Amino acid sequence: MSAQATVASQGSAGAAPIGVGLLGLGVVGRGVYDALRDNAATYAERSGRRIEIRGVAVRDADRPRPGVDAALLSSDPRALAAREDVDIVVELMGGMEPAADCIAAALRAGKSVVTANKEVMARQGPELLALAQEHDAALLYEASVGGGIPIIAPLTRDLQANDIRSLHAIINGTTNFILTAMAQDGTSYDAALAEAQRRGYAEADPASDVEGIDAAFKLAILASLAFHTSVRPDDVYREGITALSASDFRFAADLGYVIRLLAIAGRDPAGALDVRVHPALLDSHDPLARVDGVLNAVAVEGDLLGRAIFEGEGAGSGPTTSAVVADVLDVVANGVRAGSRRPWAGAAGGTDPSAPRFVPRGELRMRYYLRVLVRDRPGVIAEIGRVFATNHISIASLLQVEADAVAGTAEIIITTHEARESDIDRFMATAAMLDVVRDLAVRIRIGSRP
Amino acid sequence: MSAQATVASQGSAGAAPIGVGLLGLGVVGRGVYDALRDNAATYAERSGRRIEIRGVAVRDADRPRPGVDAALLSSDPRALAAREDVDIVVELMGGMEPAADCIAAALRAGKSVVTANKEVMARQGPELLALAQEHDAALLYEASVGGGIPIIAPLTRDLQANDIRSLHAIINGTTNFILTAMAQDGTSYDAALAEAQRRGYAEADPASDVEGIDAAFKLAILASLAFHTSVRPDDVYREGITALSASDFRFAADLGYVIRLLAIAGRDPAGALDVRVHPALLDSHDPLARVDGVLNAVAVEGDLLGRAIFEGEGAGSGPTTSAVVADVLDVVANGVRAGSRRPWAGAAGGTDPSAPRFVPRGELRMRYYLRVLVRDRPGVIAEIGRVFATNHISIASLLQVEADAVAGTAEIIITTHEARESDIDRFMATAAMLDVVRDLAVRIRIGSRP
Repeated sequence: MSAQATVASQGSAGAAPIGVGLLGLGVVGRGVYDALRDNAATYAERSGRRIEIRGVAVRDADRPRPGVDAALLSSDPRALAAREDVDIVVELMGGMEPAADCIAAALRAGKSVVTANKEVMARQGPELLALAQEHDAALLYEASVGGGIPIIAPLTRDLQANDIRSLHAIINGTTNFILTAMAQDGTSYDAALAEAQRRGYAEADPASDVEGIDAAFKLAILASLAFHTSVRPDDVYREGITALSASDFRFAADLGYVIRLLAIAGRDPAGALDVRVHPALLDSHDPLARVDGVLNAVAVEGDLLGRAIFEGEGAGSGPTTSAVVADVLDVVANGVRAGSRRPWAGAAGGTDPSAPRFVPRGELRMRYYLRVLVRDRPGVIAEIGRVFATNHISIASLLQVEADAVAGTAEIIITTHEARESDIDRFMATAAMLDVVRDLAVRIRIGSRP
Repeated sequence: MSAQATVASQGSAGAAPIGVGLLGLGVVGRGVYDALRDNAATYAERSGRRIEIRGVAVRDADRPRPGVDAALLSSDPRALAAREDVDIVVELMGGMEPAADCIAAALRAGKSVVTANKEVMARQGPELLALAQEHDAALLYEASVGGGIPIIAPLTRDLQANDIRSLHAIINGTTNFILTAMAQDGTSYDAALAEAQRRGYAEADPASDVEGIDAAFKLAILASLAFHTSVRPDDVYREGITALSASDFRFAADLGYVIRLLAIAGRDPAGALDVRVHPALLDSHDPLARVDGVLNAVAVEGDLLGRAIFEGEGAGSGPTTSAVVADVLDVVANGVRAGSRRPWAGAAGGTDPSAPRFVPRGELRMRYYLRVLVRDRPGVIAEIGRVFATNHISIASLLQVEADAVAGTAEIIITTHEARESDIDRFMATAAMLDVVRDLAVRIRIGSRP
């Protein structure tokens, strides 16, 4: 191991303390603050050095914060990130700016950075990781996906012997809570969302969660790591959960399925990536079908590994603090060799310097669940069946239900055999123009395989 | 990060190749050999250096092995481990000797070691990890527990911010296959074991698996890491699965339970450890109850984390190769800073230099399932009920079934409320002497909480 002979001597608790600058003191920031303070002796033993919080950047430094040393507070995250006595910057502000700016400034100054910021890592991960490498600093982001569940580290190190075949993940707890509630209680989307907001699982403006934006950020990070490339958020095909109705959950259950917002990434034999976030019907025996409420889970398939599943609490102060502090301790113990120093692509160590290619959505082949609102009159099934046939779509099951005598409508639930997504798109466009069709209410993809 | 400033320069694929000595060419050894050969270019890119197999130690070097370079074969693992051109020793022989001896010799020579050897790590982990530290070498053993599932790395690094509260694990695929088959097919233990042997899941001599010895080795490793101490195999209370009968699976199912061989480790508020392997009745909704067949799973509870579950294929060539090669790549990229360099206890970095204390088994408090074979005559329930009462055990449910008119016997299935294990022991000793009791057939602990 001659090339490794000059590693730094292992620290001990007697070595000089290491300084942390904490950017952000929200729910997670407070969790990290408390953990570093309450467990200082334990963490010094585990990492080899005492860890001292040298400053905390908050929006309003004058607001009293019980239990927090007021002398540490400031309202200038950039200045804190640049301070001489700050060795590690822990960025927990969220959002793009000033977070990305502070991270980049810290890395340029040779400071290591630990962040929980999925948006910054999804949008600027490749550039920031390259910057870290250039300046001999570590940039760790385990907390950016899956809260307390280790998934970044497994993909970068523990599973690195594999050719990863696919990822299937539930990585947004808010939507999983809503979908679980709709399935279990038969409530409407609006009622389930309100309950999620009441419990603090959903923001007042829930768009980032329910439109799949948050999941797409996280999936961009996971797919970049799994496939040794750079997937950007805009590369992720994305559908949210707002079109689902209580009846879809009843029909899904009757058919033996549950509905989950899945984040899926795969690579076809030609190397093109398939990266998408959308609701999916999962067989009720699928391991991801059992992931209820605010839990998260990531299933990884590799050529050697087979399938492994990582499951746990994907958000919240405790779990996210667990991931952030583990990264901090790793940096303290191992410096620039902590975590993954490998940029996602382009720079030395990446394996796919060119931009990734993506499978055109129309070429995807899947089974589909369709709910169609029709006029309740003879010949409807024949008319719709004709449009399926014209578009080369084979029907697996068809159920006409819930005639509404007043409105004169009925609902038809169709599941298809495997079909091309472009054919499904064409079916929907054509069927929408039929006089008998009142509404092509919803289309949900079936099954988790990419 | 001044103390870390002297880390070795990051390798590149252009750096000098690194030499691997492979000890053992069984199912896993062959998997590792093939992976290192077939993926050489990819692994060079990912780790920064080309990895060359410099020699392979086998029992019979003259036996032809299709696809293996005969010039690499030798029958002297000690000599191979000591060779100048071998930088990393990969030990896949299994068993204590000569494996432990080869590992120690390699570490003393400053070579890093990757092993899948649960027995060596469970018995000599503390000494070998201290030896590795002393000689500035890495000793990695991710493959020793859970096959391809990352669990050693999560416990040593990703979850290190936590005070780990408990582990509940299914870490022996052979017994889980047998238990799953007995539950699903209603077969006897002997028939299920024979099927496991037919499929290659069980050895001709299945004792190590079915007596819980293999699981105890693995649990000793996990508990040592989780609780920052040194748990030896003999510290693990252990019961196998050989006493279970087909009827237990029927009764368990009727009561809403499944039977699993659980490996459990916990720490009580006073710091005493509770470390045991035994069959347990799990509520059918418990996440571990759904882990079927040869799958493994480890549930970890931490103060920050809540609960996380790691699930996947716990054995076999591919999954184990995934873990072994990941460790090799980690050593190639990070040298002595790869994996966990922290000895389990006693040496610098351990947090519990004294020997761990264990909860006396009699003090455990749990619920119990008991199956008792009695003479089928009036007054039996009253007699047995009296022995329960005398021993302060409260009955939760009682079922008398399956009277055998010919033998004049009946079976009684009892579940208790929470009771002290010493009281259960005393009940069993007393009840066994009753004239009405023909056989105290089985006692299974209920629930997974320690």
